[in-house]
Amino acid sequence: MEQRDSEAAAPTLGVGMVGYAFMGAAHSQGWRTVGRVFDLPLRPVLAAIGGRDEAAVRAAAAKHGWASAESDWRDLVTRDDVQLVDICTPGDSHAEIAIAALEAGKHVLCEKPLANSVAEAEAMVAAAERARQRGQLAMVGFNYRRVPAMAYARRLIAEGRLGTLRHVRVSYLQDWLVDPQFPLTWRLKREHAGSGALGDLGAHIVDLAQYLAGEPLVGVSALSETFVRERPLPAGASAGLSAPGGAERGPVTVDDAALFTGRLASGALASFEATRMAAGRKNALRLEINGELGSLAFDLERLNELSFHDHTEPAASSGFRRILVTESEHPYLQAWWPPGHGLGYEHTFAHQARDLVVAIATGTEPAPSFADGLQVQRVLAAVEESAAKSAVYTPVPTSVRASVPESAQTSAQTSAPASAQAQV
Amino acid sequence: MEQRDSEAAAPTLGVGMVGYAFMGAAHSQGWRTVGRVFDLPLRPVLAAIGGRDEAAVRAAAAKHGWASAESDWRDLVTRDDVQLVDICTPGDSHAEIAIAALEAGKHVLCEKPLANSVAEAEAMVAAAERARQRGQLAMVGFNYRRVPAMAYARRLIAEGRLGTLRHVRVSYLQDWLVDPQFPLTWRLKREHAGSGALGDLGAHIVDLAQYLAGEPLVGVSALSETFVRERPLPAGASAGLSAPGGAERGPVTVDDAALFTGRLASGALASFEATRMAAGRKNALRLEINGELGSLAFDLERLNELSFHDHTEPAASSGFRRILVTESEHPYLQAWWPPGHGLGYEHTFAHQARDLVVAIATGTEPAPSFADGLQVQRVLAAVEESAAKSAVYTPVPTSVRASVPESAQTSAQTSAPASAQAQV
Amino acid sequence: MEQRDSEAAAPTLGVGMVGYAFMGAAHSQGWRTVGRVFDLPLRPVLAAIGGRDEAAVRAAAAKHGWASAESDWRDLVTRDDVQLVDICTPGDSHAEIAIAALEAGKHVLCEKPLANSVAEAEAMVAAAERARQRGQLAMVGFNYRRVPAMAYARRLIAEGRLGTLRHVRVSYLQDWLVDPQFPLTWRLKREHAGSGALGDLGAHIVDLAQYLAGEPLVGVSALSETFVRERPLPAGASAGLSAPGGAERGPVTVDDAALFTGRLASGALASFEATRMAAGRKNALRLEINGELGSLAFDLERLNELSFHDHTEPAASSGFRRILVTESEHPYLQAWWPPGHGLGYEHTFAHQARDLVVAIATGTEPAPSFADGLQVQRVLAAVEESAAKSAVYTPVPTSVRASVPESAQTSAQTSAPASAQAQV
Amino acid sequence: MEQRDSEAAAPTLGVGMVGYAFMGAAHSQGWRTVGRVFDLPLRPVLAAIGGRDEAAVRAAAAKHGWASAESDWRDLVTRDDVQLVDICTPGDSHAEIAIAALEAGKHVLCEKPLANSVAEAEAMVAAAERARQRGQLAMVGFNYRRVPAMAYARRLIAEGRLGTLRHVRVSYLQDWLVDPQFPLTWRLKREHAGSGALGDLGAHIVDLAQYLAGEPLVGVSALSETFVRERPLPAGASAGLSAPGGAERGPVTVDDAALFTGRLASGALASFEATRMAAGRKNALRLEINGELGSLAFDLERLNELSFHDHTEPAASSGFRRILVTESEHPYLQAWWPPGHGLGYEHTFAHQARDLVVAIATGTEPAPSFADGLQVQRVLAAVEESAAKSAVYTPVPTSVRASVPESAQTSAQTSAPASAQAQV
Repeated sequence: MEQRDSEAAAPTLGVGMVGYAFMGAAHSQGWRTVGRVFDLPLRPVLAAIGGRDEAAVRAAAAKHGWASAESDWRDLVTRDDVQLVDICTPGDSHAEIAIAALEAGKHVLCEKPLANSVAEAEAMVAAAERARQRGQLAMVGFNYRRVPAMAYARRLIAEGRLGTLRHVRVSYLQDWLVDPQFPLTWRLKREHAGSGALGDLGAHIVDLAQYLAGEPLVGVSALSETFVRERPLPAGASAGLSAPGGAERGPVTVDDAALFTGRLASGALASFEATRMAAGRKNALRLEINGELGSLAFDLERLNELSFHDHTEPAASSGFRRILVTESEHPYLQAWWPPGHGLGYEHTFAHQARDLVVAIATGTEPAPSFADGLQVQRVLAAVEESAAKSAVYTPVPTSVRASVPESAQTSAQTSAPASAQAQV
Repeated sequence: MEQRDSEAAAPTLGVGMVGYAFMGAAHSQGWRTVGRVFDLPLRPVLAAIGGRDEAAVRAAAAKHGWASAESDWRDLVTRDDVQLVDICTPGDSHAEIAIAALEAGKHVLCEKPLANSVAEAEAMVAAAERARQRGQLAMVGFNYRRVPAMAYARRLIAEGRLGTLRHVRVSYLQDWLVDPQFPLTWRLKREHAGSGALGDLGAHIVDLAQYLAGEPLVGVSALSETFVRERPLPAGASAGLSAPGGAERGPVTVDDAALFTGRLASGALASFEATRMAAGRKNALRLEINGELGSLAFDLERLNELSFHDHTEPAASSGFRRILVTESEHPYLQAWWPPGHGLGYEHTFAHQARDLVVAIATGTEPAPSFADGLQVQRVLAAVEESAAKSAVYTPVPTSVRASVPESAQTSAQTSAPASAQAQV
Repeated sequence: MEQRDSEAAAPTLGVGMVGYAFMGAAHSQGWRTVGRVFDLPLRPVLAAIGGRDEAAVRAAAAKHGWASAESDWRDLVTRDDVQLVDICTPGDSHAEIAIAALEAGKHVLCEKPLANSVAEAEAMVAAAERARQRGQLAMVGFNYRRVPAMAYARRLIAEGRLGTLRHVRVSYLQDWLVDPQFPLTWRLKREHAGSGALGDLGAHIVDLAQYLAGEPLVGVSALSETFVRERPLPAGASAGLSAPGGAERGPVTVDDAALFTGRLASGALASFEATRMAAGRKNALRLEINGELGSLAFDLERLNELSFHDHTEPAASSGFRRILVTESEHPYLQAWWPPGHGLGYEHTFAHQARDLVVAIATGTEPAPSFADGLQVQRVLAAVEESAAKSAVYTPVPTSVRASVPESAQTSAQTSAPASAQAQV
Repeated sequence: MEQRDSEAAAPTLGVGMVGYAFMGAAHSQGWRTVGRVFDLPLRPVLAAIGGRDEAAVRAAAAKHGWASAESDWRDLVTRDDVQLVDICTPGDSHAEIAIAALEAGKHVLCEKPLANSVAEAEAMVAAAERARQRGQLAMVGFNYRRVPAMAYARRLIAEGRLGTLRHVRVSYLQDWLVDPQFPLTWRLKREHAGSGALGDLGAHIVDLAQYLAGEPLVGVSALSETFVRERPLPAGASAGLSAPGGAERGPVTVDDAALFTGRLASGALASFEATRMAAGRKNALRLEINGELGSLAFDLERLNELSFHDHTEPAASSGFRRILVTESEHPYLQAWWPPGHGLGYEHTFAHQARDLVVAIATGTEPAPSFADGLQVQRVLAAVEESAAKSAVYTPVPTSVRASVPESAQTSAQTSAPASAQAQV
């Protein structure tokens, strides 16, 4: 009995991806997996992958399962078999590729941070708004919103389980720059990366804080530091997180660490720390949120767990409970394994793909939108401005229209991503 | 530039899978992913999936990406495009399918437990030994050996970091039977499941204990219990872990929980507990091993972590260290994500597939072998015998030839699975 | 303004303590502190301390604040200024001292285990029953019942928060015998210690299991082992936990580790492990209890915390909550510090003293009674019998009259110790 | 044999304590216990306790074991039988009492914060310097330096185990003000408390950060907030942490929370958070310090544990180890219980008393000195100044002479407190 693909009936969605390093591999796994796990209204097809180095992009296509390869992204974004362009390149090329793709009539998924500057991000938002009129959608890849524990945390907060928020504290600690011999890769150069730990890690935690709280940061005060100011030049081509260093040295032009405090629109206090110099912390995105009725805590190194304290319970029996976010009642989980059979980092990309595919099929705005990405960019710019001005409290200009979800997705299988519009 | 698959050069390995429930989904994800992440000497092709219900198996093929479907496993195991048969059915059909597949000249991967009885397991080992002469390999799917933390734990023990072992304690706690209204699915009937928590969970922890210790259990003393002796009959067809219960009730004919203690060949004491009645524990496979020089601890609910105490260190600064088993130096990890970007449950199936493909390509014996599966079966039989005889200490007969790996795999990318033969 | 002791109005309770090693120091701290923290109906006076070595006991009196010293315990138990005899000697002398003290008309607090044999324990219970007629009370020092988290756990179970119990698992892991050069102190000789890890650690966890469950063990199956069978003789006098070892060696005549499983009266399964060979575990008394409605978990190394899972909550938001047992609503805590300001090990002795003083003042039976201590002794004897008979399941004879508290103390300040009598 | 106190030979040290609320109780327990646990060169005598309310202070004397009571602290500080004055009153009276006591020729122990203003603290330092010439010593009661885990952490840092420091992050989270009905006690009024969470909790973490790092903060940027601006007036007399609130309300004149970042002298970045509005956190003083060679982490809610990551170890087997700081090799522990038998909050007061008694006996400068207290006060003032000036980075003036210990105490039994002088 030959199998006649019952999915044949579902229309396809051709995906073209630009970039094939760490993010490219992670997105590929997401695209390969999403249709095998979730029931989708559109069937994603891995149509084409793009990158400058012809041999490398061809090898990446073979390895990751893309049907074809392009060595010029301009050719990729105009292919007829591509309806969605997924941008996994460093931040300095996001604006150009995203705007071109949107103007070519494609939906766009763009890795975070949205851009390396507010001006670029504003141009991208403008392009996205024009494209929206034509029916194209744009989403920015803050994938940690799709950790089930984070989506569930958002649901608890949106339901009022924490009451009025008092404190949001988030840190993102890694340690791959502790060694002063780690080489000067593109992530350590301002012209490519925009900033250092701030844009790489800080962008994630700013988005997550605003997403979970359901409100924007309105001002920040910041310190930043580059502890190791010169590093060996990479011996060969720069290759992401690791590359052997040579004898010659060059200047590090981004921050190693950024610390900032701030206020949310509701008056809650917030604190942030992004660093790649925290020895022993590998991927410690930690957050705690305290409200008048309860608190939440999370650590990305234990991503299947969420701690929740319900302050309305009797004092004697209350405490932070460790919720294993692996029940079928939890966001995205109905599609996966039995309780306690945990997910990993890469699943966030399948969830992101799932939500975007549903948004495209239903014509609803995906979240986080480019406007959300711009809002994050404005926070990062305010952080850099404050750090340059003796940490003085610096307001964050708010866009006229940024989406902050008012309620979390309640069922991975049945609901469209909720993305209410809010004036912030 | 159309992509010409650079993998085309690698010979293919046609996989035929029987069964499409929980295990079928998990194995499918493993087979789809393994070649995209690891560099393999053979390229797995998802050739055919088999199952009795024609519509269901066809739907499963479409969903999970199998090229064709068979409604009679006998047809599947003789297909020319299948070189490897992967058995994901309940335990009562393992022996028949596995022996037929081996006799049809196929390699076989069989889910755990190897069989529902020692006699069946012995027949399977005999078939595997005959097949071995013809070049076919057989492996049993104790996938938890492929949790990187477990493979790394084995490496530490094999290197002598724990010294002479004193204690091995392992428990596997779940809670899906706490509710007395949970229905009487196949897993609660002796004729299909062989036993209850013992075969389902106990088989895993017996294998893991023997694998990690590098030596067999030589005797056991056991208690077991069925707390809820009648349950509602499933309203519809039995469907694995969950199904709504009806008004009619039937007898539970397997254990809800099994507790046993024992001795390893070296004299170390061991304790085991398998239960599906531990409220709040979802997938808590916990182990601790104490040796004269150090100790290890692990909890499957935090599968990216391993705790290690080095007792040779100065007392003031020693303690159990939490190793995030996500470094490129750890087993299987070089192929995955940066440090701290954790893996999930399903990755064990990709790792299992990777090791089996390498074994087939290199003609080396995979581990755990059918003989290892038989050894586990003998322990389970001794447990049931002891439980029936007032817990009296019951020796475990040892096979003439069972493989217990002497050293753990040291590099996911470069080494073949180590599987030294040992007289036990 | 000279202070006129307002406590002068409270009648005194003269305490005489026998023994001045580790337990003597801990009890002394309890007696010195109890009246300064709790409001007591009787004011304990540290009247006399007894021990064989005259210089040592005199030094101990000075150090620990006892008013006088006796080098013969027979003189101590008959002193007019002593109303309560607190026995902190090794187990082989408990029966003789306790019976003499009771016959001399004194109340008695006796360290655990009650005795080194069932016969001794039975004689002690008989003496206690005779003394009870004359108004003297007897208590055994299972101090871990007085860890606030344990008293609170008992309260939760007594209130039915766990429902029908299914599993009780307790282990007590230490590591001070891992080093084979640790000397042969009195705790390693059967004639003084009665047994090894079994009596030292196992007695604690058997009592705790029965106390928390509110029901006795009715049968056990056991394995035990002495891993290091010869050790250096102590260079000087044996001194408790540590002493330098000399060149000569002698046989260890007690167990290093004991593993046992069993059944509670209600049918719940129980497992126990006591060992002093678990490298890296210092004082890891760990327990978990699973019931149909919830579960509890505890680790003595984090004695201010109790984990509680309420299985009646919605699955999505349920999980083990970490209760900091430091609220004024918790047992004993009203007398201590603000929330989160944790207590230590020694506080159990102040709590024990407080409960005994209240019992004496009110003429109520203290718990654990000598009958409770006998019940533990019978379990230990059954464990040894089972271990000697190939682990065969061995019933535990139940005394005609043993107290197992039906409800936990609900307020350290206001309530008398609850100690309902139950036929077990 | 009547006991002749062998300690009689040791000269006495008469202690007079002012204040008898929470801190008074804690200090009393420290003074009662210290000589029973540690071998001391001077024998502390609880000579007199002072307080305004004659009946209350008399009751406190009886309860806590002080020989006499004074209703005017001026009488207490001039008593002949008092050589050491221990000040446990609210901060607004510290300066007056301390200066009077020093001028009366007494040694002084003053609770933290040293004072409510920099000016008061400076006057106290000047008085302490004058007294030093006469042989009197002064110490400020930052008792958390005496948590064994903290003293051990200091030792590890002083030994260079962390290398150059990069990050110090400390937060102190409590939740007793979450309830808006909590009454307006003295701690919520600026005139008595000086500041809110900042002085109460922030003072502790600033001192701890500087102590552990071995260097001062040189500048800060701060935000602070009072979330609940009016609270019910206490129905009766204000009584520390808890009092029932009445119907009338008054303004809260101190901060509920303070967030600040800063730089240490070496260039390390630091962050601080002090709040009494973190629902579910009872006494969560948490810190993490990252250096080029390693990291430390600690949580006061688990005060017997210290986490240490040694970054010089092989990546595969490294990780944060949980050190149970209960070994005899750890600071203060030789005097206490066997390994794993944890201490509690109050033990810090016994350790503080021990170190001060040894300093007095040996004529060495105790740490933290009043100059250390002044340095903390300057940080708090800079925090308030920055918070009032839009968070602008505000330098911390450094005193000409503040002691920051260069090395931690290495043995509780044998060494005097190390307190090297440093120009900061």
